[in-house]
Amino acid sequence: MLTTVETKNFHITEPIKLDSGKEIKDVQVAYEAYGELNKSKDNAILLLHALTGDAHAAGYHEGDTKPGWWDIMVGSGKAFDTDKYFVICSNMLGGCKGTTGPSSINPETGKVYALDFPVITIEDVVKVQKKLIDFLGVKKLCVAGGSMGGMQAMEWSIQHSDMVTHVIIIASTARLSAQGIAFNAVGRNAILSDPNWNNGNYYEGEHPKKGLSIARMVGHITYLCEEAMHCKFGRRLQNKPSLDFNFDIDFEVESYLAHQGQIFVDRFDANSYLYITKAVDYFDLAEKYGSLENAFLKTNARYLIISFSSDWLFPSSQSKEICNALMKNGKDVSFCEIKSPCGHDAFLLEHETQSKIIKSFLAEVDE
Amino acid sequence: MLTTVETKNFHITEPIKLDSGKEIKDVQVAYEAYGELNKSKDNAILLLHALTGDAHAAGYHEGDTKPGWWDIMVGSGKAFDTDKYFVICSNMLGGCKGTTGPSSINPETGKVYALDFPVITIEDVVKVQKKLIDFLGVKKLCVAGGSMGGMQAMEWSIQHSDMVTHVIIIASTARLSAQGIAFNAVGRNAILSDPNWNNGNYYEGEHPKKGLSIARMVGHITYLCEEAMHCKFGRRLQNKPSLDFNFDIDFEVESYLAHQGQIFVDRFDANSYLYITKAVDYFDLAEKYGSLENAFLKTNARYLIISFSSDWLFPSSQSKEICNALMKNGKDVSFCEIKSPCGHDAFLLEHETQSKIIKSFLAEVDE
Repeated sequence: MLTTVETKNFHITEPIKLDSGKEIKDVQVAYEAYGELNKSKDNAILLLHALTGDAHAAGYHEGDTKPGWWDIMVGSGKAFDTDKYFVICSNMLGGCKGTTGPSSINPETGKVYALDFPVITIEDVVKVQKKLIDFLGVKKLCVAGGSMGGMQAMEWSIQHSDMVTHVIIIASTARLSAQGIAFNAVGRNAILSDPNWNNGNYYEGEHPKKGLSIARMVGHITYLCEEAMHCKFGRRLQNKPSLDFNFDIDFEVESYLAHQGQIFVDRFDANSYLYITKAVDYFDLAEKYGSLENAFLKTNARYLIISFSSDWLFPSSQSKEICNALMKNGKDVSFCEIKSPCGHDAFLLEHETQSKIIKSFLAEVDE
Repeated sequence: MLTTVETKNFHITEPIKLDSGKEIKDVQVAYEAYGELNKSKDNAILLLHALTGDAHAAGYHEGDTKPGWWDIMVGSGKAFDTDKYFVICSNMLGGCKGTTGPSSINPETGKVYALDFPVITIEDVVKVQKKLIDFLGVKKLCVAGGSMGGMQAMEWSIQHSDMVTHVIIIASTARLSAQGIAFNAVGRNAILSDPNWNNGNYYEGEHPKKGLSIARMVGHITYLCEEAMHCKFGRRLQNKPSLDFNFDIDFEVESYLAHQGQIFVDRFDANSYLYITKAVDYFDLAEKYGSLENAFLKTNARYLIISFSSDWLFPSSQSKEICNALMKNGKDVSFCEIKSPCGHDAFLLEHETQSKIIKSFLAEVDE
């Protein structure tokens, strides 16, 4: 078990050239690392977080009662076994948890970036992570991530095929569907429509909490599924014997969404939400390389792809597309659809089967 | 073919007692009627509109270039054949298209109701429609509706089992799922969060257009389906050769949603949206009658239930629940799942198969 952990900072001195053509300077990266890098520096695993995650994947921060976001999977004897592996997780570029993003100070102006922050892509996010991995002295790497983290894992295996030996892609996709873009667009619109958003310049005043909260509510509907919502809430009323006949909350599911919205706005930056969802929308390996098959042409890694039966945001069919593209290239790929009623959120919850599969896949690293 | 039609008004003089326990007075009902009522007054069909529909189901209003919302189904020789039937459609209570709703003048205060309008239920909506049907002299009635219109059709067959002979329930449900409530809650939250909403008192100032627009965007995602969105938009860019790297619209699907939001706010009242979605959330025949089977115990009508294969808002499984409850009561019920890629919207689009099935079902009326 990991006990107290802490987030460290890494400073990138050289400017980073971005996909948009712009450059970004003085990037700070917040990261955590668990376990020890071995002598041959080939036992590292980079965990890649999803939309609103951070560097704090596992263990407890001093005084905290809740562990990191993937603690069920990371630690001594767990899927990502810190007795064996050097496990790293960093907050993504554009985030708001210690890595440079729109809420950071722009070194050129001395003011918060806000919308002066450049629009970033998943490839840009990986570029920044690569600087950290080099700094840590890692030679060979496993990459693993769920949802948007899976996109980064794919990108890593393509950009750094000489370094990446194992890739774990969970509940992810090689490109967002029109429906996925639509949900992101609604979330962004909710933020942009909040008068407190103020064209991104809200850092000295009221934050666009209402807009960000609505974006989060929409998100949460897509992270669950009808079955999960039915089991969790059904049509039960929220602490009342009968309907209210007004516009207060009547049903438990309404209360759940409102609560998720409320707690989110206290921990996340609205502009980061805009930038990160845009990066997700833009990610499209098939478009970039002519076809998905072409995208994986030069990769050298072994792939493990996991999907969940009730995930309708990134359904199994999208995982299978990735599998097919890899297999057409003759790559080594394992695929597993885990039966689960938890929807997209399953990758954060269903650790038993997931752990077994990942452990077995990673066992090869030790060979 | 129906050429020029017009919306008429009917005034209900007596107060109507509502489900909430409140009363509403001086209700105006906007309605249209096509075809002629026969001598035995038993050839009437009442069409029941969905969430944002109105009384203008078919034909053209003077000067209009677009016909009513179900024109593909209503007219000479069509599914609801105006040569044979007396077809009626009225705007629902709580609406904003001529029937009394939150944007109407409260006769007791001389001011717009706004939130003084009572929260209504589907049963209340049917109560108002019944006054109109009696006024028109109808003795026997077919009722037909899609989505929320199907809820009203069920309620009609239960409340007025002596009058209703045929019931057509399309893409509907006997109660909204937790997921359905969640989507409605997001839409309402978007309206309530718009500062222009002003606790419902916006009629003399700026309307909460941004909030209502976001509610509509969320709605439109649920009316389509992933497949329909993929076919319609895919990941095509909106009138540009490459990504913009800013927060303007990049993809066609974003443009479509934004457009749907924009045109909706010019034709619909935000408070009506709140009241009507609440009525939909509250509708639950199983809860009201102890079980869905019990709900249909005393009905005398024949039922036709139609669902669409790609409808994930009111999926076929929910139509089958209604069928099963009716069959357990030994009622006469026909069910058809139409294969369609159009999602929930199919009931407004897929007229060919739908028309054939409905014509054949209604042929019995003539027997």
